[in-house]
Amino acid sequence: MNTLIIQSPLDMHLHLREAEMLKLVAPLSAAQFAGAVIMPNLIDPIDSLDKLLTYRDQIIHAIGSETFTPYMTLFFREYSKNELETAKEHIIGIKLYPAGITTNSESGVSSLDQARTTFEFMQELQIPLLVHGETNGFVLDRESEFLGTYAWLAENFPDLKIIMEHITTRDAVELLDQYENIFATVTLQHLLITLDDIAGGLLSPHLFCKPIAKFPHDREALLQAALIAHPKLMFGSDSAPHPVHKKECAGCAAGVFTAPVALAVLAELFDKHNALDKLQAFVSDNAQKIYNISPIPKNIEIEKSDFIIPDNYGNVVPFMAGKTISWSVKEF
Amino acid sequence: MNTLIIQSPLDMHLHLREAEMLKLVAPLSAAQFAGAVIMPNLIDPIDSLDKLLTYRDQIIHAIGSETFTPYMTLFFREYSKNELETAKEHIIGIKLYPAGITTNSESGVSSLDQARTTFEFMQELQIPLLVHGETNGFVLDRESEFLGTYAWLAENFPDLKIIMEHITTRDAVELLDQYENIFATVTLQHLLITLDDIAGGLLSPHLFCKPIAKFPHDREALLQAALIAHPKLMFGSDSAPHPVHKKECAGCAAGVFTAPVALAVLAELFDKHNALDKLQAFVSDNAQKIYNISPIPKNIEIEKSDFIIPDNYGNVVPFMAGKTISWSVKEF
Repeated sequence: MNTLIIQSPLDMHLHLREAEMLKLVAPLSAAQFAGAVIMPNLIDPIDSLDKLLTYRDQIIHAIGSETFTPYMTLFFREYSKNELETAKEHIIGIKLYPAGITTNSESGVSSLDQARTTFEFMQELQIPLLVHGETNGFVLDRESEFLGTYAWLAENFPDLKIIMEHITTRDAVELLDQYENIFATVTLQHLLITLDDIAGGLLSPHLFCKPIAKFPHDREALLQAALIAHPKLMFGSDSAPHPVHKKECAGCAAGVFTAPVALAVLAELFDKHNALDKLQAFVSDNAQKIYNISPIPKNIEIEKSDFIIPDNYGNVVPFMAGKTISWSVKEF
Repeated sequence: MNTLIIQSPLDMHLHLREAEMLKLVAPLSAAQFAGAVIMPNLIDPIDSLDKLLTYRDQIIHAIGSETFTPYMTLFFREYSKNELETAKEHIIGIKLYPAGITTNSESGVSSLDQARTTFEFMQELQIPLLVHGETNGFVLDRESEFLGTYAWLAENFPDLKIIMEHITTRDAVELLDQYENIFATVTLQHLLITLDDIAGGLLSPHLFCKPIAKFPHDREALLQAALIAHPKLMFGSDSAPHPVHKKECAGCAAGVFTAPVALAVLAELFDKHNALDKLQAFVSDNAQKIYNISPIPKNIEIEKSDFIIPDNYGNVVPFMAGKTISWSVKEF
């Protein structure tokens, strides 16, 4: 197969940031995806409908076209039922950050028990719960340590749709088959790299993200689940741009910028494993079924021809900068 | 205890580099140590007596005083018995790098079997073997995977003194008690940090070294062995300066620059654990016994008073830059 049409590809976990960065990166996602789930962890988190609608307008303005749907999320806090009823039509879900785990999550939740009422409202109103599932433990153990919390959520709120965001471990993949109401996103980089790529040779800040890439057996489990387009797994890039001076410095921020290269690199990866026929489900159909959404029709043509990944997009260095891959997205 | 005299402290694993870097860092070590074991992995490795004597002269010239002994090492290759007999009086040991594992070790040894004759000569001539013990495996497994090679060396060359350099794992600590002819050095950073400090928050290039810092149980085992001044364990800083532009960049070189802060930070650490009485053995006496050396008399006075670690020494950022510690080396 030398060309491939992906119908309405979706990025189910995306950071678009604000201001100049938003203007830089939003059009890059809009050029290749029909829509994306937009993360709410801005410096001032999106934790009210007002903020959300303002941010949504900024995104649409930055894109400058109507062929891309920003599926908005609220930052988790205790919400009243009334707030959720009003917000429901504007959001795809609510994103929960355990306090202090990742970029701008200082105001996240530190005790899940106090959030119980909000979970009940969400369950009743059928609003999905998106979770950054890490504890405050040792960096390699954080996700595995959090899996018990996912189980607690799944058991206590059996009608709540729970999405484990950016899973990185074999244990998390296995959890997908244990609870009917648990789903997951996985990033591009976690299908490709392990801790070895970050720290095995020279240290690579541009491959550093949270959760950090883990062991070879973890990557293998994630990759196998993606290649069969496991029906409970969706592509979510977690593309997280930082200006280069925040990456190449004494304290490098977490985040890998993959949005503009994701589809081409995924095509190369799925082709290598003779799984191109599963790419449509992995980057769109699974998400449509899980979230019950119908994205705008948008055909993206991918072809087997060399793509030299740029060294930078503005002041941001992308994943695999400067490398040549064998598939490219056809530009219109 | 508020002051402490360390008699002839020794750094049993030190990178002094060349040219301008040598001039910058050599005096810093000489100000606080009576001697150090000098690593031979220059860009052109020190693999002949001629190169070694030239490098030794450069070091002595850079120090500009006679109160510091550079204990020289040759870079391991197959040496003739005659070469080793001639070199013996000028060296403290020979450093073996498995090929391609660390900075400038591309010319290291890839098969130990072909080195057997050289090991036999070294054993006969009582020249210690210093080893960078890592395989080419997954970054967290490299040292553990190499331990079988240490065992093979210890069993096949029972009269060869084998030093496991910069050990980072509990498994390596345990090996010390299993073979009479196996010894080890441990760095400052591996007594203090784990992978969490490098990658658990922001990514910290200035804490990145090879072997990489590992799990909490590993650090704990190393620390406990140091605090009792385990007689087969020596302090070896592995202080490895890189200019800041090689650390804060897209591909950060491995190495932590600890030499000028090591004694003060060790004093603080041993004080915190009520083990100051073991510091003399850990930073000097153990090494004297293991290597059968008598360093020049040199008393270094350490006192309990604040020391603000500089942000930089020239173009090199030290370990714990900008932090205040509670012990300092008294300047003369």
